[in-house]
Amino acid sequence: MTDTYRRIVLADRPVGEPTAANFALREEPVPEPGAGELLCRTIYLSLDPYMRGRMSEAKSYADPVAVGATMVGGTVSQVVKSNNPAFKGGDFVAGMTGWTEFAVDNGAAMRKLDPAQAPLSTALGVLGMPGVTAHTGLMNIGRPQAGETVVVAAASGPVGGMVGQIAKIKGCRAVGIAGSPEKCAHVVDVLGFDACVSHRDPGFRTALGKACPDGIDVYFENVGGAVWETVMPLLNPFARVPVCGLIAGYNMTELPPGPNKIPLMMRDVLTKRLTLRGFIVSDFLDQWPQALGEIAGWLREGKVAYREDVVQGLENAPEAFMGLLKGRNFGKLVVQVGHDPTA
Amino acid sequence: MTDTYRRIVLADRPVGEPTAANFALREEPVPEPGAGELLCRTIYLSLDPYMRGRMSEAKSYADPVAVGATMVGGTVSQVVKSNNPAFKGGDFVAGMTGWTEFAVDNGAAMRKLDPAQAPLSTALGVLGMPGVTAHTGLMNIGRPQAGETVVVAAASGPVGGMVGQIAKIKGCRAVGIAGSPEKCAHVVDVLGFDACVSHRDPGFRTALGKACPDGIDVYFENVGGAVWETVMPLLNPFARVPVCGLIAGYNMTELPPGPNKIPLMMRDVLTKRLTLRGFIVSDFLDQWPQALGEIAGWLREGKVAYREDVVQGLENAPEAFMGLLKGRNFGKLVVQVGHDPTA
Repeated sequence: MTDTYRRIVLADRPVGEPTAANFALREEPVPEPGAGELLCRTIYLSLDPYMRGRMSEAKSYADPVAVGATMVGGTVSQVVKSNNPAFKGGDFVAGMTGWTEFAVDNGAAMRKLDPAQAPLSTALGVLGMPGVTAHTGLMNIGRPQAGETVVVAAASGPVGGMVGQIAKIKGCRAVGIAGSPEKCAHVVDVLGFDACVSHRDPGFRTALGKACPDGIDVYFENVGGAVWETVMPLLNPFARVPVCGLIAGYNMTELPPGPNKIPLMMRDVLTKRLTLRGFIVSDFLDQWPQALGEIAGWLREGKVAYREDVVQGLENAPEAFMGLLKGRNFGKLVVQVGHDPTA
Repeated sequence: MTDTYRRIVLADRPVGEPTAANFALREEPVPEPGAGELLCRTIYLSLDPYMRGRMSEAKSYADPVAVGATMVGGTVSQVVKSNNPAFKGGDFVAGMTGWTEFAVDNGAAMRKLDPAQAPLSTALGVLGMPGVTAHTGLMNIGRPQAGETVVVAAASGPVGGMVGQIAKIKGCRAVGIAGSPEKCAHVVDVLGFDACVSHRDPGFRTALGKACPDGIDVYFENVGGAVWETVMPLLNPFARVPVCGLIAGYNMTELPPGPNKIPLMMRDVLTKRLTLRGFIVSDFLDQWPQALGEIAGWLREGKVAYREDVVQGLENAPEAFMGLLKGRNFGKLVVQVGHDPTA
């Protein structure tokens, strides 16, 4: 074991796109766990769009990361030393220890992982927060019915990919929106969607309409912006829109030019009797075990696939995160921070 | 009985605000009912904001009124002659016979009224479509919980007035938005809301904030436009927004100037986990009997009040309707088309 470890803190708050200067690498002595605590060595760090929100001071569903504090993040770790009877050295755990090589934690919000069940990194993807986000948002708000059309943006990402695959399992037509022809090919060929269109294609609007000949019954919203405004006219009466993320706007510093289209959106909500509902995964906390169990079953049966985009080394997390906000990742973005003895 | 009768047809489609030229009065021989049909003499005609939508060709939840056809509308009538065993001459019925003094109808969508139970005109207000709209929208989508704050616009109107009164019955704080100090006084003093603010007051934003010291948990949307954008920042996490009407935009011919605030609205939907859901009263058709029964009970117990704005004579319907779209009515707008023998 090394005597020091590295962590990445929020150096200052970004205006618009984050830059390298918003992050700082700190090196410090590895701490000792206190009574009831455990020392964890990070193996994988999850990078997710929501982190952009935590870098800002703006009021949101969660408190912002304080300037100087370790960046927030989901992790898979191995317990190095435990003063908590619920854990022992060598255990693998999923937690929220952040952008760091080591962390002391009380274990209250950690779950133990069985590496024989699935690769450890999946606890940050299909078998973790993104998978449960897709499952709970789609099933509780989207409520897909067999024969309906389900559209999801960021379809090659961990949430979008799972949304479409669950839609297929439920007997729906699944249509993805992604950022490149390569991503679209993966969404159709590997994830098994019925169609996928690139929002960077100049013919996006037409292509989306063609991919949804019976309109859209469920639109799982991950991106917002121009994609949302393209989807809106295609929504069927009584369509449901789980609003999960708005990555297109996370770096936005000013509103797009007019006209103000809110009246148009409200008119669609009324005349089509739409349901829009925002959620975050913790709103359905009681459904985690059931959702994870169901996804694990589909994985075992080969009914769902996933793709990871693994970056090596904690020091590369900021750049990878900045790329994530621009759609540069391809699959679930994970930073390998330390050795995975099970791989 | 007269030999001819009058009806008002859609002469042509309005662009923006309707004008007198969009309507035409026709005089024709009173028709004979065929097999299974009944001839009805209109006593009261309901004027409602949704009619503006039916005057346009734009796709909505219902087919537009054809040019040359009788304007659509809810009515209370007396059966003059019946070839339908379910009805007999002298019966009072509520139906959708439109802007007309006489109508032939098959009775399928009519309900019989008992004038001993409540004044006949209430079948167009508290004990009719507006009352059921308020009840079903508030209870199914708003889901008010005791102690929450419920805000409704057009609060002196038949839907808004009932929304706030049901909110009070359910133990909520009820705050109205109306178009004048006189209407606000009525909303508080007669309908029993906790507060009411005028959206025409330059200090509207501040006044609404003060009237909702704990934020807004349910916003029942009747108007849209600037009122909606003022309400939005006051919504609490997990607030519910039944979208029932958007009268502020019904005469709109172009979108308001920019910036485009859709991203702002979507951000609120996400970070506050809002639910917006559009509905029309027929979406909850199976709940009509239960809703009407409950409202009738509250009326008998003196728990709900209502106000009517009665205009005399079918020929005055167009002008009254144009005023409705500008908020000139004060209470449920009804046209007395013929003699009410029970009044």
